[in-house]
Amino acid sequence: MSPAFSHTGVAVIKLKNPPVNSLSLELLTELVITLEKLENDKAFRGIVLSSDCPGIYSAGLDLLEMCGKSPGHYAEYWRAVQELWLRLYLSKLVTVAAINPCFSLQGPCIAGGCLISLTCDYRVLADNPKYVTGLNETVLGIVAPFWFKDTLVNTIGHRAAERALQLGLLFPPAAALQVGMVDQVVPEDQVQSTALSVMAQWMAIPDHARQLTKSMMRRATADRLLRQRDADVQNFVSFLSRDSIQKALQAYLEKLKQRKG
Amino acid sequence: MSPAFSHTGVAVIKLKNPPVNSLSLELLTELVITLEKLENDKAFRGIVLSSDCPGIYSAGLDLLEMCGKSPGHYAEYWRAVQELWLRLYLSKLVTVAAINPCFSLQGPCIAGGCLISLTCDYRVLADNPKYVTGLNETVLGIVAPFWFKDTLVNTIGHRAAERALQLGLLFPPAAALQVGMVDQVVPEDQVQSTALSVMAQWMAIPDHARQLTKSMMRRATADRLLRQRDADVQNFVSFLSRDSIQKALQAYLEKLKQRKG
Amino acid sequence: MSPAFSHTGVAVIKLKNPPVNSLSLELLTELVITLEKLENDKAFRGIVLSSDCPGIYSAGLDLLEMCGKSPGHYAEYWRAVQELWLRLYLSKLVTVAAINPCFSLQGPCIAGGCLISLTCDYRVLADNPKYVTGLNETVLGIVAPFWFKDTLVNTIGHRAAERALQLGLLFPPAAALQVGMVDQVVPEDQVQSTALSVMAQWMAIPDHARQLTKSMMRRATADRLLRQRDADVQNFVSFLSRDSIQKALQAYLEKLKQRKG
Repeated sequence: MSPAFSHTGVAVIKLKNPPVNSLSLELLTELVITLEKLENDKAFRGIVLSSDCPGIYSAGLDLLEMCGKSPGHYAEYWRAVQELWLRLYLSKLVTVAAINPCFSLQGPCIAGGCLISLTCDYRVLADNPKYVTGLNETVLGIVAPFWFKDTLVNTIGHRAAERALQLGLLFPPAAALQVGMVDQVVPEDQVQSTALSVMAQWMAIPDHARQLTKSMMRRATADRLLRQRDADVQNFVSFLSRDSIQKALQAYLEKLKQRKG
Repeated sequence: MSPAFSHTGVAVIKLKNPPVNSLSLELLTELVITLEKLENDKAFRGIVLSSDCPGIYSAGLDLLEMCGKSPGHYAEYWRAVQELWLRLYLSKLVTVAAINPCFSLQGPCIAGGCLISLTCDYRVLADNPKYVTGLNETVLGIVAPFWFKDTLVNTIGHRAAERALQLGLLFPPAAALQVGMVDQVVPEDQVQSTALSVMAQWMAIPDHARQLTKSMMRRATADRLLRQRDADVQNFVSFLSRDSIQKALQAYLEKLKQRKG
Repeated sequence: MSPAFSHTGVAVIKLKNPPVNSLSLELLTELVITLEKLENDKAFRGIVLSSDCPGIYSAGLDLLEMCGKSPGHYAEYWRAVQELWLRLYLSKLVTVAAINPCFSLQGPCIAGGCLISLTCDYRVLADNPKYVTGLNETVLGIVAPFWFKDTLVNTIGHRAAERALQLGLLFPPAAALQVGMVDQVVPEDQVQSTALSVMAQWMAIPDHARQLTKSMMRRATADRLLRQRDADVQNFVSFLSRDSIQKALQAYLEKLKQRKG
């Protein structure tokens, strides 16, 4: 992952963690540090979040960080996921997700890529039926944390979120647009340019007024996690430490390996 | 009412209470007991809620239980309605409403049939303009309790719920689908088979993850009633005990009798 | 502004404050008094809120009340805006907005006209692309108060409100209808008659049941302001008292003068 900086005050962050572009602890940590720097650098007013990979695997929580490790490791990992969400969801910068192949779910992905896009101010998705987006935790036998749920409800409403989360639905472009998972679907080669046009529209608004408005919309949702952050980590660790969950995740990883082999 | 049991782990419950298929205290009690049994029977993972009647009258709260009876009776009746809602709304089983004629509002019905369908995980409605669905309390001069309202808001959103509840709107199939009162409209003879196909999709999800997700979505709404259940009963009883309300309900019952006579 | 009274129990209030039809302190005060009278007069059951002006300028918060005045004046003005919102949002009367040119934003308008329409039970908008509606505070460098935000979220949902408020979007008729800012778009010469037809539909519902239902839907939102009304005034006054805000508003007023000159 390396942010590209433009003269317009926009940083383009391309997630890159070959071969599966998953959200490892290392990538999360690096991403949080990059975001912190950009937030504190007055030269920047916006971020485009994109991917940079051969187009097969996708960003998502990293199952390898959640399998066969110590409780301490799980706690550290989850705290990093929380941190990323908090930084992105409350970012003072304009955030636009340019969702290209690498966000799609063709590899070990537990909805992390989708969550990142849901924290953004605007989402542009490539019009390719292979690029699905969604929070598919239940399919793997696990449960999205309440703040993933809150983010989704804020985006697509209570009923659509209830159905999508229970069924672990992955939406192809047209359905994603209709339900509101993304704001715009464009041909694949226009994702980046569309994201930059949208960015220009958002940057035309005075920063201070826009930031206060964003905070007014999102602060209550973020505060819910902040109030119970430790309990949420505890919950994640004890859930992951169950034999049945570890077995389910390992079986899923095995299946992926065989598919690739 | 008698549940039909299938080898697939799905129980089909057909409401039957001739001649008007209304939710009498007896039917409510029987339904709650059936649900409790199914919840505790590991052989079952899903319920299809349907109706079984000649096709003219419909399930709904029973005005006869709400007219000319004692305060104690009203309290008992309302507690049974609460109990049914709580059981269905938080059911661990997958619940699909197959809405056929008997849910429609052509008889003494105060939206109870609609409420039952709103507690389900998915709603399939027969495509017949005579089958309307909605919470029409205000038309009778009464007010839906807050937990009916919460259920509706969770399903169709705040604005649509505000308008529907104030006007006591009954939606025919196309409008019901558009506003989100139901998830699917199909020809009448396909309601049951569609409900079973949908059920299969939901049952493909691991139970434990699906149940925790459902609870995460609905627990706060259910807790609002649980916290003030007695006050809600009190409120219902004192409302029903007013002369003006009793007169309005009796006038409505008279009108129905004449229509039939 | 003068309410026209009809024999049907409906008052038609036409906002009139030439030349810009803005919500001056005087107009707000007059409007609140009129509403209070109508609420207490049993002859009235509904209000149509409309405009009466040459068709160029529009109702909205009055920048002149917010520029170069004393903190005490700002406090008095804001309290009057709160009072109008509280009266309209919780009105026992049926309220229908007939949105014609004068609500549109072609003059000094900070979304006040739109807010008034959002408090109504139903909104009819003239089908003319020049008539845009929205809360455009951020464009002027200021922030909508949380109760404007709550009203908008209750009307168009969280996601649409987040985007509209951050960008200060002004919706032309078709877009306003699609996002839910208005309930109906009709040819300009049918706005008034449509509003009266809609009124008839709402007045067919028994008042008492309709009023209790409306209160059930809106009370929690109004209570949020009531609980922190003084703090909200304080917040507005200290915000307006900043040099940067005063300069931004004055620059905006200058621009408007030049446009007219």
